[in-house]
Amino acid sequence: MSFIGIFDSGVGGLTVLKALKKELSHESFIYLGDTARLPYGSKSPRTIQHYLKQNIRFLEKPGVKALVVACNSASSVLEGDFWDGIPIYGVIIPGAREALRVTKNRHIGVLGTRATVESGAYIAALREQDAHIKVTQQACPLLVPLVEEGWTEDPVTIQVLERYLRTPLHAGVDTLILGCTHYPVLKKAIATIVGPHINLVDSAQVIAHQLRNDLLSGKIAPELGPGTTHIWTTDANHAFQEVGQQILKPLHIDEWGLADI
Amino acid sequence: MSFIGIFDSGVGGLTVLKALKKELSHESFIYLGDTARLPYGSKSPRTIQHYLKQNIRFLEKPGVKALVVACNSASSVLEGDFWDGIPIYGVIIPGAREALRVTKNRHIGVLGTRATVESGAYIAALREQDAHIKVTQQACPLLVPLVEEGWTEDPVTIQVLERYLRTPLHAGVDTLILGCTHYPVLKKAIATIVGPHINLVDSAQVIAHQLRNDLLSGKIAPELGPGTTHIWTTDANHAFQEVGQQILKPLHIDEWGLADI
Repeated sequence: MSFIGIFDSGVGGLTVLKALKKELSHESFIYLGDTARLPYGSKSPRTIQHYLKQNIRFLEKPGVKALVVACNSASSVLEGDFWDGIPIYGVIIPGAREALRVTKNRHIGVLGTRATVESGAYIAALREQDAHIKVTQQACPLLVPLVEEGWTEDPVTIQVLERYLRTPLHAGVDTLILGCTHYPVLKKAIATIVGPHINLVDSAQVIAHQLRNDLLSGKIAPELGPGTTHIWTTDANHAFQEVGQQILKPLHIDEWGLADI
Repeated sequence: MSFIGIFDSGVGGLTVLKALKKELSHESFIYLGDTARLPYGSKSPRTIQHYLKQNIRFLEKPGVKALVVACNSASSVLEGDFWDGIPIYGVIIPGAREALRVTKNRHIGVLGTRATVESGAYIAALREQDAHIKVTQQACPLLVPLVEEGWTEDPVTIQVLERYLRTPLHAGVDTLILGCTHYPVLKKAIATIVGPHINLVDSAQVIAHQLRNDLLSGKIAPELGPGTTHIWTTDANHAFQEVGQQILKPLHIDEWGLADI
């Protein structure tokens, strides 16, 4: 049996695991949340690259046939489509592709951590497919701590969101990429502020479709199931399992483990 | 020459370095900010202990005669007054001592990160000196990201502070321990909310006095100066140096370095 490995700095990437599991129920998944070193969004590319290597080494041990980097900040330092010969999927390119598919006025907004915004990875991915696309970026460093606090519909969070959303809205975007795995949790609040005419793009669904296609085409060897799900973290944190179960239900998790990295 | 080593997860401990440098200008200091793995306040005791060991190993290399753990979350996992035979100073016991000195109604509030509050370290330190002292704790996980964003006098920060301060104020404390090196940056905002009759205690000054006494008494061998100041971080982060210089000015820094840990 060979796993699909998923990596995120914390709990946010479980939204990606859930989308994958729904689409690919015969497959077995191993998820690693690097909770001992989160968040990644404020760290330098050099440090993120160093962590990414260590995390992938951990995921490779049980045997993986595909790797998904659910963390946007880590995806922003990825180079190429393979890692040690294993297909590797970041969230940036699928997110960019989906945004380009739905935008009408060719002006896309990107919400992300400081690391993601400063990397310019979304701009590069968007421009590679459409050299004339207009992009307005906004770093939103307070959203991750607010989500982790569970203040998802709090007046404070609404004020912070209104402030962050002002720039892309004034600039005139018709599509917003939720460029961090934590942000889909705030989708309802964001939708209320921006109104029904702005498209909100998150990468989980897009990645699930792409992996499904690559399994069907034989780029990745499919399993016959039944699939299992293993979740590991680098720090022992009760909150992770609680919030994680909330995000994943009614999914059955076969194992919760603590990884020494 | 032998250094006084100071450790914090990030930039906040520089307030402690500044207080020490002011009091002990003949001494040489080496500061380590573990910016690649911050924040500590949301991590488990096991992980914090692991990081602490690595950081102290780094500080020991150039030769230290005393260690100051400026980070409250890391101080909360310290055991004993020596590390490899070197005197080690946490911020919890000095903070508790100062709070006990100034309280009149014997009811003390503690503001801290989740790790510090859950450790119960301040309660233990306070009760060891006064078994009947009343303590009301409040975890304030959003304050560190707000300070790091520079939103120190922002209406959002005021609202968050008002919410956090409600519990200790209603409980009737007359003294508040600012139990995180980031919080002194919010001292003015906190003072405005709680009014002039509540004592605000931060540990920087207290630690500086204690170290001075231990140098005078010969517990630590004093230097004749001129003292030098070396600052290292585990991640390359321009913001650290900018915010750091702001906190430290007009202090002269002899070296800014990047530590591989």
